[in-house]
Order: sequence, then structure tokens, then C-alpha cells
Amino acid sequence: MRDSGQIAVLGVTGYSGLELAQLLLRHPSAKSVVFYVRDTQGAKCLSELFPRFRGWGNAPVRELPGGRSVDAIAAGSSGTAFLATPHEASAMLAIELLGAGLRVVDLSGAYRFKDADTYHSWYQAPTLHKQHLAEAVYGLPELYSTVQSENPLSEARLVANPGCYATSVILALRPLTQAGWLAAGSSVVADCKSGASGAGKEPRKDLHFVEVDENFKAYNLFSHRHTPEILQHTGLLAEQLTFSTHLLPISRGILSTIYATLGEKRNLEEVATLFRQFYAGRQMVRISAEGTLPELQHVTHTNFCDLGFALDASGRRLIVVSCLDNLGKGAAGQAVQNWNHMLGIEEHTGLR
Amino acid sequence: MRDSGQIAVLGVTGYSGLELAQLLLRHPSAKSVVFYVRDTQGAKCLSELFPRFRGWGNAPVRELPGGRSVDAIAAGSSGTAFLATPHEASAMLAIELLGAGLRVVDLSGAYRFKDADTYHSWYQAPTLHKQHLAEAVYGLPELYSTVQSENPLSEARLVANPGCYATSVILALRPLTQAGWLAAGSSVVADCKSGASGAGKEPRKDLHFVEVDENFKAYNLFSHRHTPEILQHTGLLAEQLTFSTHLLPISRGILSTIYATLGEKRNLEEVATLFRQFYAGRQMVRISAEGTLPELQHVTHTNFCDLGFALDASGRRLIVVSCLDNLGKGAAGQAVQNWNHMLGIEEHTGLR
Amino acid sequence: MRDSGQIAVLGVTGYSGLELAQLLLRHPSAKSVVFYVRDTQGAKCLSELFPRFRGWGNAPVRELPGGRSVDAIAAGSSGTAFLATPHEASAMLAIELLGAGLRVVDLSGAYRFKDADTYHSWYQAPTLHKQHLAEAVYGLPELYSTVQSENPLSEARLVANPGCYATSVILALRPLTQAGWLAAGSSVVADCKSGASGAGKEPRKDLHFVEVDENFKAYNLFSHRHTPEILQHTGLLAEQLTFSTHLLPISRGILSTIYATLGEKRNLEEVATLFRQFYAGRQMVRISAEGTLPELQHVTHTNFCDLGFALDASGRRLIVVSCLDNLGKGAAGQAVQNWNHMLGIEEHTGLR
Amino acid sequence: MRDSGQIAVLGVTGYSGLELAQLLLRHPSAKSVVFYVRDTQGAKCLSELFPRFRGWGNAPVRELPGGRSVDAIAAGSSGTAFLATPHEASAMLAIELLGAGLRVVDLSGAYRFKDADTYHSWYQAPTLHKQHLAEAVYGLPELYSTVQSENPLSEARLVANPGCYATSVILALRPLTQAGWLAAGSSVVADCKSGASGAGKEPRKDLHFVEVDENFKAYNLFSHRHTPEILQHTGLLAEQLTFSTHLLPISRGILSTIYATLGEKRNLEEVATLFRQFYAGRQMVRISAEGTLPELQHVTHTNFCDLGFALDASGRRLIVVSCLDNLGKGAAGQAVQNWNHMLGIEEHTGLR
Repeated sequence: MRDSGQIAVLGVTGYSGLELAQLLLRHPSAKSVVFYVRDTQGAKCLSELFPRFRGWGNAPVRELPGGRSVDAIAAGSSGTAFLATPHEASAMLAIELLGAGLRVVDLSGAYRFKDADTYHSWYQAPTLHKQHLAEAVYGLPELYSTVQSENPLSEARLVANPGCYATSVILALRPLTQAGWLAAGSSVVADCKSGASGAGKEPRKDLHFVEVDENFKAYNLFSHRHTPEILQHTGLLAEQLTFSTHLLPISRGILSTIYATLGEKRNLEEVATLFRQFYAGRQMVRISAEGTLPELQHVTHTNFCDLGFALDASGRRLIVVSCLDNLGKGAAGQAVQNWNHMLGIEEHTGLR
Repeated sequence: MRDSGQIAVLGVTGYSGLELAQLLLRHPSAKSVVFYVRDTQGAKCLSELFPRFRGWGNAPVRELPGGRSVDAIAAGSSGTAFLATPHEASAMLAIELLGAGLRVVDLSGAYRFKDADTYHSWYQAPTLHKQHLAEAVYGLPELYSTVQSENPLSEARLVANPGCYATSVILALRPLTQAGWLAAGSSVVADCKSGASGAGKEPRKDLHFVEVDENFKAYNLFSHRHTPEILQHTGLLAEQLTFSTHLLPISRGILSTIYATLGEKRNLEEVATLFRQFYAGRQMVRISAEGTLPELQHVTHTNFCDLGFALDASGRRLIVVSCLDNLGKGAAGQAVQNWNHMLGIEEHTGLR
Repeated sequence: MRDSGQIAVLGVTGYSGLELAQLLLRHPSAKSVVFYVRDTQGAKCLSELFPRFRGWGNAPVRELPGGRSVDAIAAGSSGTAFLATPHEASAMLAIELLGAGLRVVDLSGAYRFKDADTYHSWYQAPTLHKQHLAEAVYGLPELYSTVQSENPLSEARLVANPGCYATSVILALRPLTQAGWLAAGSSVVADCKSGASGAGKEPRKDLHFVEVDENFKAYNLFSHRHTPEILQHTGLLAEQLTFSTHLLPISRGILSTIYATLGEKRNLEEVATLFRQFYAGRQMVRISAEGTLPELQHVTHTNFCDLGFALDASGRRLIVVSCLDNLGKGAAGQAVQNWNHMLGIEEHTGLR
Repeated sequence: MRDSGQIAVLGVTGYSGLELAQLLLRHPSAKSVVFYVRDTQGAKCLSELFPRFRGWGNAPVRELPGGRSVDAIAAGSSGTAFLATPHEASAMLAIELLGAGLRVVDLSGAYRFKDADTYHSWYQAPTLHKQHLAEAVYGLPELYSTVQSENPLSEARLVANPGCYATSVILALRPLTQAGWLAAGSSVVADCKSGASGAGKEPRKDLHFVEVDENFKAYNLFSHRHTPEILQHTGLLAEQLTFSTHLLPISRGILSTIYATLGEKRNLEEVATLFRQFYAGRQMVRISAEGTLPELQHVTHTNFCDLGFALDASGRRLIVVSCLDNLGKGAAGQAVQNWNHMLGIEEHTGLR
């Protein structure tokens, strides 16, 4: 599909939007990037809103058209719109932008499910965008072939960028479930820990520095919205998966510790080989050397997902440790990786 | 002055108020402590509002009487009210509580100045409480005699608890200015750094965990409200003092690095002796051993202020490093120390 | 058992030893406390070694008698020795101190097992202290009656203070296993996260500030030494328990997220009631209110262990969240709580 | 000067070396990069030593030739050697590498002074490399013309990369001293705060996570080695400058708060104009918008130095706030910027 390399980013004010700006402003295929926000506060370019962007060029900032029209965004563009907006806004904006001829990468949960009921029940929102759910491609590139003609991302008009936790857990489980290695009907526990940027940038009592610093806690047990994504792309049944989330006193990064039971006794080499083969040719998933485990510091500020393993003496109890940057491979980095697939270029372009 | 040991704490929801609660709930002279908040949210006791207090007894929580009457607070009390309220509220509440016969320790800036104009110009608030400014005792106990009959705190009805930065800087400079050791007319730089609890508990964009974590910045240069307190109690002229404040990515603690020029050449032993003599018999100020400097970790969660020194080869350029916990000696701890003086008991009671 | 209230602390230089010093120096029953270290560096009292103790009195520091004799420690003492020494040292020291008539609380792993083989295989150390393993009482007070005459701690000569992770997990599981609530033969996952003080105070590459800050990682999977303690005191079989440990970028605190399957459908109220009854009358375990979960900030710098619960819709998948301070209830605080039982006084004395 | 684009990095194991590796591995002009370390531990490529480099290509790692010969490094190379080695090692290695025909960028203090005595007295090391001190160019590019033929870096064979604190302070003061704006003989206070990576990667008691976390302290008052660099490049006299350093509980970044007295009354606009003109055409120094101050989060992981200003009401007391990343503009980033000048390409190449 032709792509002009012209980019509109809608909703740059959150942490994912800011990360996306950093990545796109140095991406070699991004011909022009225009940022849209609800309120420009009189700013003409991005660096006036965010001092960190001074010296990065003068990317323009414009008012996000209110409510019903995206003509201003679409005009003259045969490019791509990235939506770093809340799911309710994304649901509507995507329809209009597609109608105007743009391709869309949505970072929210609006288009992640084939089934409108799943969206409705987990996101408590009307599903006025049903007609487009079927068309959306789930933007986890490692699930698809690297061969251009067999990769649904290459022709996608609408890409639903996965959730950060979901990416972390699916990449750790999919090789196992696809190979049929899990003991039939066995339980999987995914104990996930995320840095605070994953909770958004809006001031909240529980995100005050003093409340997070030197603290640690679990939240949203049995009720996190990323649950249905994980089920959909691992094939696990709801009753098999226990998925928990915790808030780490750090800014970025997700580490998931995943407990599974294998149907047959395996050794570490066999497990690593399964994963190496599954991710053969992929740039952004790294399998840890035997005897070592991944840690967050190796993936923050990158687009990598690192996977490592431990097995008990029985060879059947497996722990997979999965690390990524929630703003990188868990959000903005993955959005750029998806865009690279849409452009038909190397998936890691602009991501190292 | 007789004191029943009955305590009312008004405004327990901020960080100073919470620290005060922790200190008073285990203070041996606190016969009863009642907490008043704007909105009890239906809670009857403190632990229902703040889970950290479960297992500490059932200190009652009551609605702060709105606007015009403190009868409910005063009734049956011949005790002390601690005000951990904003200065505008404290200004009014103190008048009423004094009228009802209670003694008052105010942690805000409302009563720290003899001069109503100073309050008005730095706090941008009307000075309806002028009549009580003269009566208020500035609650920095180390400025007064330990002898009960000569200590204005012992008979004080109204104590103005100092600002956290002010305490840190005054304790570091007062021995020098009182002894006349500073070079005449010389400049003093007080470069102060505070943890985030000093900025209050209200959610704010710039206090979001991600904005403070791994960050550091200066703020309020040449405009911090604690300036007039420092001038008033060190005797420095406004043009002599440069006072700056910075936000540390930690929860608690203030370290001030203070640069002064001595009128005569001194050595480290002489400087330490001056300070040791000034603070002789005081429990809560500690002078560092020669060749060592204080650090925040030794004073957080305590009521100590630690002071250490460095001199250049000329023996005239002096650096004083001053460390305290902004919630301890900088706020709630000092309030309790003041109360100990009001009761006529050991100043460190309940503070170790 | 008579106790003079005289205390010797051996090995005060680690984080547990320092915490113990802080607790014992303000404990009302501690008549005298003497600290023993390998190398006093010429210091006579604790505050010369550790500036944080200035102003806390002049607790004496003495050289730990090398190798073969503890006469110097025992002389004139009918008190208690706390061992904050490595397990190899504790194994030997305890024997000598008991021989000299002292009671001993050992914070290491030396005396935690009835079975010498368990010690040998997990601690890779000779078991020259076999004869005393039988006598040692496992110092988790909540496992015993509060009635003095039925509490083995009250007459204990040798108390083995539990491991920090072990305390966290056992307190979360014991009510369930004792009541037979777990599904027969079902798996339990204990995913535990600890602050860095748990890893000791010795400089190590992986404990350098920059390596821990903004980082998070798993370690010692399927091989942590606290495993056999957990099995011994929960009754779980080795193949039922998956116990994992992670390093949090904070100084203190352990949060364990524990996944269990109940034999029968329960609701949250029933679970909370089971735990409330099990811990009825105990001061140091707090059960979270329904709908809330514990967090580390509520237990750090305390001796509490907070427990909270989540259940899935089936009522059979249970998550228990357990929080404590690894230096408090996980080490030094618990040692003091044990000593309180040994003295026959309130178990929370000196711990609030 | 011709440059093959071939690079040798000696001493990659510290934090500056690792940052240098990250920058050079994606630098468009780096044709080949070979890393030399004392002990390869059997590793053939960088990612075997440091897992964070997996997926970044297979940059070779080789044993650093011991003692007397650098033939192995020089062989076939007409490129540049970056020395991320201690100053004692750099002093010798540079001589040999220059002799073998390579250009050298040294990140240590070995070649920063024209005067051998200065090196000797501040670094307590013999000055066997005197003959090369004269030749070395101090690598602070903003001190030189951007015009290639007038820029000593363009033909330099040996570049001495400045100290991190020195860069921070010199960039903040040089426009003022060069313009003669400081009051004659007036004092300057530079109160500097740095993240822990500036203290090196070797394990040390005072760099243990628990000792730095939630802590803050001053160190090396009146004795920091970067003092003579600051004097040399600002023209201040030793008695005019008070330079202090503090350890921030963060990994990266230096913020310096610099207090100066102007000879004449100025306003903020005039000050900003002076700095804008001084740094006109320079990419890596950013002047903050009036009314705003720089903060560390805007410069970490970049090569920028941000400068902002505050003036008191008199218009003569000036505070300059200077922010940079000690591993970026303070070390590895600046080394790459210097190399860009040596190659005659845009100074920000590979640095955004």
C-alpha cells in the first residue's frame, strides 16, 4: 500500500504520545509529523509545549478538531494517523480518519477485539464502531509472518496496537500454547509488575510521588482490561489464566513472571530452542542465554522484549520471565514497529 | 501553665498532619487525641481513613466545624490544638481556639511574623489576625533557654511552628550571626534541597511520580515564602541572603548547603566549638565529627537536625551542611518538641 | 524463665543488626545493651561507628571474641544474646552462649530446621550443631498460643528467627493449610518481591545503586533458601509450591502475591473471617478491609504483617497479598517480638 | 585530517564506556568499532559481556594489550581510539596510540591541563606524559569556532574530554566571564548535584543501593578534581570560586546551581541574549525560555546542556541553573561530539 510518510499524531500529551513523538521525529521514513492536541495553549510547535523537544526541529502542533470532523487532519494527506487518545475518542476518530483515506494505528483498546461484546463488557463503552472491528489487525508483529505478502499488517488500514501487559504476556506464552506444550487444562499465573508511566499522566492521589516512591502494591486483581487480549491471543480459557498487576516505584518497564505447567518433562535447552525457533528472524524479541534471566534495565528505552526461563527439577514447572518497556514495545515503539510493517520496511527501522 | 494532655489535631490529611498523628499517638503525655478533618467520609476513627493506623488504637475522627464555631472542639478541653491546616484557615481557627481557652500550635505560616505586612506580602492574604501576631512565639526551641522560667514556649498560648527550610537554615546560621563571625555585609548563599512531601499531598502534574522520579530541579528562586523567616531569625539583610530551593526525588528530608564568609580566619575545630557551645544541652541538634558531613539518611524519620562543616584553605570560606527531616524537625516533630516545652517536660519526649 | 534484661547483640554491622539496635535501644525492658562486632575500629560506643546513633545514648561496642570463647560476653550476664551473624558463625556461637547460660535469638538460618540434612543441603554447611536443632523454637509467634504456659517461646533457650520471605509466605498460607481449605494436592505460587536491604550490606556489583535503581528482576528461581522453611510450616509438599523472589528498587519491604486454589467455593467475607479468627488476639498481623489490598508503605518501619485477599468469580481462585518490612517483621522486629514472648510481656512492646 | 572511521574503544566496562558503546554502535560514520577490555572472560563480542547489547550487532571484544604495546590495536588502523580508562592508564596509552598513528579521545583527566603540576597535584600521579600535554585540545566544542579551519578540534590528534561537573559549570559561566559581566573579584558559588553513575561502577559501601536510595549528601567539599578545569576555562581565580558536589539518588544527570554577582544591573532578557549570542549556531546548548528553569528529566539520555536564569530584584544577583547528563554531554556524548568535529561533520551527528 502506498504511504506518503506523512504522519498525524493525535493526543501527544500522555506518556505514550510523548514517546511516539520522540520516535517519529527521528524516524527516517517520517516525511512530516504534525501533532494534534485538544488545547495548544497558543503553541505553534511541539517544543513550546514540551521543553524536552527543543533542538529537535519545529514539529507543528495543531488543535484537535472537535467532535465531528477530521477534514483538517486528512487534507492533503495520504499518510498515517497515530491515535494516542482514550479508547472512547479513538473509537470515533478512527472511523472518520479511515473515511478520509488515512491509515490508522490506534494505541487504545478500542479496536483490539473481534467481538464487540468483549469491548463493551471490559471497557464499559458503546460499540458504535462495530463495523470496523473485523477489519482491524491486532498489531503484535511477532504473531505474523515476516514475509510481506503473508503479513496482514502490510496491507492493514487499521491497526490496533496491543496493551502493554498483553504484549508482555502473549509473547511469553504464545510459543508454548501454539506448540501445545502446556499440560491440558492446566493453570497459568501471570504475575505482572509495571512502572508508573503505564498508569497515565493525569495527576491522581495514588500517583503522587510520595505515594509511589518506596512503595509497591497489587491492583485490579481479576479485573484488568488486558485480560481478554491475553486470552484471545494465547488460546487460554478464562478459567486457566490468573493475571495480576502491580505498580513498581519506577517510571518505565514491565516485568511479568509467568508460571506454567508443561505436559511433558523438558529441559532448559529444549524450552529455549522452542522460543528461538518461534522468534527466528525477529529483531525485537531476545531470548536470554541459558542460566541468565532478563532484567528491566536491559530493555528500558528500547523496543526489545526479553524472555528468559527457569525450570524446576521435575522439568515440568516452567517460569517464563518477560521484560519490556511499557512505553516502547508496550506502546509507542510497537506502534512504530507496526508502521514499519505497513510501509514494508525493516521492522526495527528507527527503533535502535 | 496547666495542660490536660488532651489534644485536638485539625487537618490530619496532609503529610505533616499524618506525621503528627504518628508522633502524638505514641506520646506518653498525650492523654487523648481527637482528629478533625473537613470530610470524615463516614469514618469514625483514624484507621478507617488511613489503613496505616490500624492496630494503633481507635483515635476518633470528627468533622471539622465549618466556618464560624469551634465550640465542639473546645468543649471540655483544657488542652492543645495542633493546626495542620493551610495558613488562611489557621489564621482564623487559632483566634477562635484561643478564645475558647485552648493552647494552639500552628504548623502554617500564619503566625510566624511579628509584622503583619510581611505576612501579607509573602502570603497574599488579609491579616485579620494582627492582634495575635504579637503574642505568637516562634517555635524554634533551640533559640530559647532550656531553663523553664526563661523559655517563652513554657507559657505560650500560641506557638508558630517554623517552616521546614527556615528551620534548616536558621539552625545553621544563627550561631554564626549571633557570635558576629560573618564578614560584615558579606553574602550568604543557602542552597536547599527538599524531598517531595514538603510540596504537599494534593495531586499536581509536577508531583506525579514520573515527573519527580529520576528528576531534579530548582524552583521558586528568589521568591520562596520561607525567606522572611530566615531573615528575621538570623538578622541577615535581604540583600545579603540568596536562598534557593530544589526538589529531590525522595519522599522526606531537607539538606541545605550554606556558603558564608567569615570575618576572621578560623579552623574547623573553632567552628565546631562555636556550634557545640551554642547547642550545649540541646538534644535535637547534632554536630558532626570533624572530617565528616551529615547526610539525609541519618535524620529521616527522626527529629534531629545534623550540622557539619567544611572550610577552605584560607579559613574564611565556610560551608555549613544542615540536614533534617522536613516532616520531623521541619514540621510535626518540631511541633511536638514545642509542645513538650509547653508542658515543661524533656524536649525530646516521644521523639526518639 | 528469669531474664535480667541484659542484652548482647553480636554482629550489628548488617542491616538487620542496625535495625535491631534501633529497636533495642528504645525497648523499655532492655536494661543494658552491648554490641559486639568483629572490628570496632577503635570505637567505644555505637554512635562512633554509626553516626545515626548519636544522641541515642552511649551503648558500648566491643570486639567479638575470636573463635573459641564467649566468656567475655557471658560474664555477669543472665540475659539474652541476639545473633545477627552469618549462619556459619551463628551455628557455633549459639552453642557457646547457651553453654554459658544465656538465652539466644538467632536471626540466621542456622537453627530453623529440625532436620540437619535440610540445613546441610540448602546452606552447604557442616551440621556440627545437630544436638541443638531439636531444642530450637521456630520464632514465628503467631504460630503459637498467646497463653504463656502453652507458648514454647516463653521457656525457650534458643529461638530461630524465621527468614523474611518465609514469614511473609507462612503467615499468608498457614490459616488456609491448617483449615484444610486448599484443594487437595493443588499448586501454590508465591511470587515474592523484596527491597534491597534483604540482600545484605556488603558491596556487590549487582547491588550498586545504578544497577538496582529503575530496575527490577527475578533471582534464585527454584533455589531460594527460604523454601524449606515455608514447606515445613505450611505443610505443603515440595512439588506443590513454586516460590519465586524478585529485587525491588526500594530499601525495605516484602510484598508476596500468593496464588492458591480452594477446595470449595468461598466468598471474600468467609476468607477474611478465617484469617481474622486465626489471628484473633494477635497484634502484629492485620487483615485488610474487604475490597482493599495492603501496600508496602503501610508496613515499612513497622512490625506489622498486612494480609489482603482477592477471589475470582468462581470463588475458588484465591490471591493473598502479604506485606511486611523485611527488617521489621521479617527480621529485627520479629526478633524483638520473640524476646517479648521470652520475657512474658506484651508481644508488641517496643514495636510501635 | 583523514579518518578511516575505524574505532577502538579501550575500557568499555565503566558507565562512560558503556554509554560510548551505545552511541558509537549507531553512529553513521563509525565504520567499525572494536572494544578492548582487561579481561574478556572468554567473550568474543560485546553482547556476551553485556546482555543489553544483544540485537545490536556483533561488535568484537578483545583483550587490552598488557603494559607495553598497542600494536595490536593500531594494526591496520588509521582511525580513532577512545580511552574510557582511568587517568593513570590513559596517560600511557595515549602516548603509544599516538605513536602508532591513531587519533585519541581521552575521557579521563590525564590530558586536561596544560600544566603538568596541576595534573600532578590534583591527581597524585607522575607526569610522564608532559610532552603531550601541550598538544592536547580541551574537548569542549562550544569554546571553539564552528568554522572548520578555525576549530582546533578539526586537526587535533589528541583530545582531552572534559570532566562532567566541569562541563556543566564552564558552559554556565564562560559567557559571563568572557563578556566581563561578573563584578570584579566577586565570588562565585557552584553548587553541583550529580547522579550516582558519575561515581563509577566499582562496588563501594557508599554506593550500595540502600546507602544512596532516599539519601542525599555533599562530598569532596573544597577538594574536587574538576576544580582546576573550571578555573582554567572560566578565568576565575581560585579564591573566587567555591565549587561543591553532592550525590543525588538517581542514576544519571548533573544539575548545577551557580550563584554570581553581576557588575551592572541587568534584566533576564539581557542575560538570555548574552547566552543566546554566545551559543549561536550551537546544537547542544539550549537556553530556557524566560520564566522557566531547566530540569534534569529534559536532558537525561541526551547530549544537551540546558541553561536557565533567575535574577533578584536588584538585577545583580544572578543564578544560572545548568543541566546535563553526566554520561551524555558530561562524558560519552561529548566524546562523540568531539569526534564529529575531528571528522568535520555536523557536531550533533549520532547524538539525537
